[in-house]
Amino acid sequence: MKDLNVGLVGYGFMGRTHSNAFHQVARFFDVPYRPVLKALCARKPDRAKAFAANWGYQSVEGDWRDLVARADIDVIDIASPNDTHHDIAIAAAKAGKMVMCEKPLGRNAKEARGMVEAVESAGVPNTVWYNYRRVPAITLLKKLIDEGKLGRIFHYRAKFLQDWTISKDLPQGGEGLWRLDVNVAGSGVTGDLLAHCIDTALWLNGRIDEVTAMTETFVKERKHNLTGKVEPVGIDDASAFLCRFQNGSLATFESTRYARGHKALYTLEINGEHASAFWDLHDLHRLQWFDHHDEGQVRGWRSVHITDGDHPYMKHWWVPGLQIGYEHTFIHQCADFLSAVGAGKPCPPTFRDGLATDYVTDAVLASAKSHQWEKVLH
Amino acid sequence: MKDLNVGLVGYGFMGRTHSNAFHQVARFFDVPYRPVLKALCARKPDRAKAFAANWGYQSVEGDWRDLVARADIDVIDIASPNDTHHDIAIAAAKAGKMVMCEKPLGRNAKEARGMVEAVESAGVPNTVWYNYRRVPAITLLKKLIDEGKLGRIFHYRAKFLQDWTISKDLPQGGEGLWRLDVNVAGSGVTGDLLAHCIDTALWLNGRIDEVTAMTETFVKERKHNLTGKVEPVGIDDASAFLCRFQNGSLATFESTRYARGHKALYTLEINGEHASAFWDLHDLHRLQWFDHHDEGQVRGWRSVHITDGDHPYMKHWWVPGLQIGYEHTFIHQCADFLSAVGAGKPCPPTFRDGLATDYVTDAVLASAKSHQWEKVLH
Amino acid sequence: MKDLNVGLVGYGFMGRTHSNAFHQVARFFDVPYRPVLKALCARKPDRAKAFAANWGYQSVEGDWRDLVARADIDVIDIASPNDTHHDIAIAAAKAGKMVMCEKPLGRNAKEARGMVEAVESAGVPNTVWYNYRRVPAITLLKKLIDEGKLGRIFHYRAKFLQDWTISKDLPQGGEGLWRLDVNVAGSGVTGDLLAHCIDTALWLNGRIDEVTAMTETFVKERKHNLTGKVEPVGIDDASAFLCRFQNGSLATFESTRYARGHKALYTLEINGEHASAFWDLHDLHRLQWFDHHDEGQVRGWRSVHITDGDHPYMKHWWVPGLQIGYEHTFIHQCADFLSAVGAGKPCPPTFRDGLATDYVTDAVLASAKSHQWEKVLH
Amino acid sequence: MKDLNVGLVGYGFMGRTHSNAFHQVARFFDVPYRPVLKALCARKPDRAKAFAANWGYQSVEGDWRDLVARADIDVIDIASPNDTHHDIAIAAAKAGKMVMCEKPLGRNAKEARGMVEAVESAGVPNTVWYNYRRVPAITLLKKLIDEGKLGRIFHYRAKFLQDWTISKDLPQGGEGLWRLDVNVAGSGVTGDLLAHCIDTALWLNGRIDEVTAMTETFVKERKHNLTGKVEPVGIDDASAFLCRFQNGSLATFESTRYARGHKALYTLEINGEHASAFWDLHDLHRLQWFDHHDEGQVRGWRSVHITDGDHPYMKHWWVPGLQIGYEHTFIHQCADFLSAVGAGKPCPPTFRDGLATDYVTDAVLASAKSHQWEKVLH
Repeated sequence: MKDLNVGLVGYGFMGRTHSNAFHQVARFFDVPYRPVLKALCARKPDRAKAFAANWGYQSVEGDWRDLVARADIDVIDIASPNDTHHDIAIAAAKAGKMVMCEKPLGRNAKEARGMVEAVESAGVPNTVWYNYRRVPAITLLKKLIDEGKLGRIFHYRAKFLQDWTISKDLPQGGEGLWRLDVNVAGSGVTGDLLAHCIDTALWLNGRIDEVTAMTETFVKERKHNLTGKVEPVGIDDASAFLCRFQNGSLATFESTRYARGHKALYTLEINGEHASAFWDLHDLHRLQWFDHHDEGQVRGWRSVHITDGDHPYMKHWWVPGLQIGYEHTFIHQCADFLSAVGAGKPCPPTFRDGLATDYVTDAVLASAKSHQWEKVLH
Repeated sequence: MKDLNVGLVGYGFMGRTHSNAFHQVARFFDVPYRPVLKALCARKPDRAKAFAANWGYQSVEGDWRDLVARADIDVIDIASPNDTHHDIAIAAAKAGKMVMCEKPLGRNAKEARGMVEAVESAGVPNTVWYNYRRVPAITLLKKLIDEGKLGRIFHYRAKFLQDWTISKDLPQGGEGLWRLDVNVAGSGVTGDLLAHCIDTALWLNGRIDEVTAMTETFVKERKHNLTGKVEPVGIDDASAFLCRFQNGSLATFESTRYARGHKALYTLEINGEHASAFWDLHDLHRLQWFDHHDEGQVRGWRSVHITDGDHPYMKHWWVPGLQIGYEHTFIHQCADFLSAVGAGKPCPPTFRDGLATDYVTDAVLASAKSHQWEKVLH
Repeated sequence: MKDLNVGLVGYGFMGRTHSNAFHQVARFFDVPYRPVLKALCARKPDRAKAFAANWGYQSVEGDWRDLVARADIDVIDIASPNDTHHDIAIAAAKAGKMVMCEKPLGRNAKEARGMVEAVESAGVPNTVWYNYRRVPAITLLKKLIDEGKLGRIFHYRAKFLQDWTISKDLPQGGEGLWRLDVNVAGSGVTGDLLAHCIDTALWLNGRIDEVTAMTETFVKERKHNLTGKVEPVGIDDASAFLCRFQNGSLATFESTRYARGHKALYTLEINGEHASAFWDLHDLHRLQWFDHHDEGQVRGWRSVHITDGDHPYMKHWWVPGLQIGYEHTFIHQCADFLSAVGAGKPCPPTFRDGLATDYVTDAVLASAKSHQWEKVLH
Repeated sequence: MKDLNVGLVGYGFMGRTHSNAFHQVARFFDVPYRPVLKALCARKPDRAKAFAANWGYQSVEGDWRDLVARADIDVIDIASPNDTHHDIAIAAAKAGKMVMCEKPLGRNAKEARGMVEAVESAGVPNTVWYNYRRVPAITLLKKLIDEGKLGRIFHYRAKFLQDWTISKDLPQGGEGLWRLDVNVAGSGVTGDLLAHCIDTALWLNGRIDEVTAMTETFVKERKHNLTGKVEPVGIDDASAFLCRFQNGSLATFESTRYARGHKALYTLEINGEHASAFWDLHDLHRLQWFDHHDEGQVRGWRSVHITDGDHPYMKHWWVPGLQIGYEHTFIHQCADFLSAVGAGKPCPPTFRDGLATDYVTDAVLASAKSHQWEKVLH
């Protein structure tokens, strides 16, 4: 097992999930590289030092340009806010580094396209942390679809419901709240939550060509934490769209931070000729599965507890019946990335896959504005 | 308790649910009228006689015009296919009969408008059998909304999923299959299933002004049972739309007969500032309820088993814990209709309410065709 | 279809469920007899008249001896409190009447034995209303077991949990509360709730030879509604036992009226070598089914919605997806009884089956007292 | 943060969970000590080296006596089979080491008593890895009980159901299968699974004085992997008991490895005067909670998703809605142990608590043999 030197940018929520993945991956998976936490890069020196100490980063940088310039770094992992992805990723690619980037890839497709060009020109390994592809239940579903178990697909539906921004007193922008600042985030729930739904959908169900959408900003003004002033809210609080997939199936998508009672309810369902499946992030270790070939009198939705050794990724963990959690999806992606690097293969979702999602979110936002169906670029 | 003489048109699925309601209502509810099953009207004499014998109808008519002409009939109940609603209802109203009509009111708003004018001109009591308003869980939800328990509403979502028409070998039209014949039914799932979702939504959440929709006919040709030939399918197999309610909330609606694994999965959810609710026809005796005012550490979705004496309609049935079923919703509507007649009040959903749903389904079908947002008439 | 003249004793909760069954059965099932509600017998004349009027009984009797003496009665249906079962049933049998008896058959096995002897000597059709055998999900489970789908049985567990007697202010005895009066009821939850669990278990899983049990009376004194005085409570508030079935499987049984949060939670589970099943009265229209032969990666508990035409009894009701409720189990038993009478066959659970349950409840109560394992008589 | 030098004995399933806990604890919890993985002790040198390399143990020992003798070890963690617990723990205590021991403490109470005496005489910190106390849902339940939210307790029920030993072809004994060898394990499911149920119950609901039990060995002979011969099976395959708690509540307990369809279904329920709770290991991140004080019409079981910052342990992990898994319970116990050591306080369950469980399991096994109620020693 060779070392792979990692330079992480960002120490927020995603900085923690990625760091944990780097630590855990080689203990549980047989990977060709062991990540070495070489350097952390973040803006506030004190917090950066504390984070680095806690997670075992060997050094701290204050400017990502310095990090990218270091010869002892193999991979740049971008876990900082959305407005930083573009510049860092391009610089890293130009410097010949592998690049791992938190989702969404860009604040919009234009940014993302530049990033794709950079990594592809440089020929460096790259991946976007759409971690839900590596929930074992979803990975299994992909396998079942690929095996033809569902037959012709008629329907796809996905939603991502949260409720944490309902209070009017919640400020926008600044530490921990940049997801509410349109300049930093690019968009609201469309880029944050709906993008997850779209990435999984494109992977499971193929291409989308056109959408009709609506968005809403329920709370129009919030105090901005950086300026201290009450300012118009630029993000979308809720977002929904209809579309047809290229395989002829119909779909509904929705995301919001105003669905009281749901913390992070990402659900998806796919209905095929022969079988259907449903999944729910709030019980991520289960797959609901319906097989029409079952004998009629005892046919029903099966609640499959995805904890057996023959379920994707699960032989690396504990014993049947004992569930894993959210953080493991990052470990799985890290394992797959390291294996792909070792094998000289791409690790999807690549930047190009991330761009495909940005094309859809761009079309969604455009349709909501134009009040018309909008084509998805490709 | 006075007698109320009923003349029923139709002996299909709905003929049975209505007949059962007429029989059961006065045993369980304290109503001012007892329905007397005076006459059944249907086309095939042998089947009509058998049905009448089984359900205790005192006489049989072969032509609805004869039924309407009878002096001993107080109320005409229309449970025949959609293409018959318009003419029968108008004739009945003109003859001064009360009119109960199975949903949807008309095959389209134009038909429905004529029917509304007829009953309103005649001043006769009228109701449309959108029976799901009388599921105790939904009636309770209406009460909770009216009490302000949810506060400002942000989201509404409803879907009605079935899977019984997936097989290409299923014929269209004729006995038991007229719902697949566009001439008889008017539309496919839009008028059949989506109409239920819309009626409940308008009742719970208010007016809809504009929609963007898509529909699909997955199986393009089917053998027609009346002609014996393979003919193009005219109905929509699936239908979905987005809209805003007048109260500012966003909504997604969907219906299909191609969702493998779902027999009659009508679900609805409403998210308010303070509380949310979810309901599912497959477990119609439960209401899922989330109250944000609950103490944080034990806050969660409550699965309320709607079988207590203080739940709507339930004191008339058994004891706590013992569920009722689908058929009871018709008994409830019948009880309310009889009480309303006794009190000289309307029994919603009236024909006017039924027309409102037809306006929405018309807009949905129009939008699917025009590929544009379409206004809902009022 | 011939008439079958019914004389009902009792107008309480069970009087209603039986009356409803007599009314509904012939409309939904193809039975050789149509029940005619000839006479109602009950103690309080005013209430009896009102009940008879509501349910359409043609006459009212004040003394069951007069009812039994009537030549125009074919079947005596006993829905009065437990302390009346013995005398009425024996007199009815001696008078050559068919006898239907609400459960438990006797207040104890001694009473029940006399009743069995009476009906068997007289050779009259007889049945005990252990209605849960006719929940379609349970009837289906019996079929699956008989087909050998479960293989060798290892475990059975059942419980019946309620919470309606927790309040110390609830009186014992008298109208609507006789189930708390040991002299009337015979026992508390053992004869009331546990008896249901035992009847189903004996039917599904065979004979029990020995039990170890414990019972408890949580509230020791309650006001008695008949005497007006605070008196010791004689019934068991909770009851549990362990046993082995003759087929070698192990079982746990429990019943209580002190399980806060449960209204009528009768659940049962059976685990076999190849398959397992779980059922729950609070969602009586579902059977949970696990089949180990399913492909490993998508193996899970199936939630089977028992509403299809190929499910027991269900082709007589509505369409797939539309559930029936509690009251229908009585209609099913009535249909089976009428068919059995027509065919000259017994309709289980017969009085002899009812006695078998009384033998087990006797052993449970004896074991709780003796603090030892007790043999079950046969 | 000071270093705490750990010497681990055992490299099986539990060796992995403990090692992971030692690695993760200080990154997520603010603890006074950072575990240093000083040495691994295990019998097979090759496997030991590989395990040590993977988990970062600095050295390997082949004999636990050598490990205990090392001056550079602060805490001995026993994760080896049950028959080794007694000798290692006593030696470690005598050597003045802190001792952490996998459950059950001894193969029986006699062994456990010796271990308690050893650690108490030596005055060394000690704990038993009954990890389920640190499932956040269960820790929360303990808090709710202590706050008096449930009031007087009427019922407790727990079961632990698995299905992995149903096949007759499964051998007993040897690598990975020592749990089926009575000499190594001490007992079957009683010490393995039921012990978990008992530990949690004693913690939540207090003392048990007497039990009536039954056990069964369904498969009487299995090939023994160490001898290569078919030998009688000495363990109990299933075990159940009834008891009363000192607080007057009644309880049922059951454990088995023959419940087809259940992988590791540990469930518990407690019913109090005012509230009830239910928990299930297969969805360990949820607590089902019923509060009778809720308004009647919307009263129901709440499904509480235990992922908020105000839930026990959860502020150290991710954000609301994102679940943790099985492995985290060990990390929590490790955090509590380190904090307790820092504060000079005991970390329950201590060895004395572990002994209390062994007293109950001894009584269960005795009762199953004697066919009588048996007192629990204290």
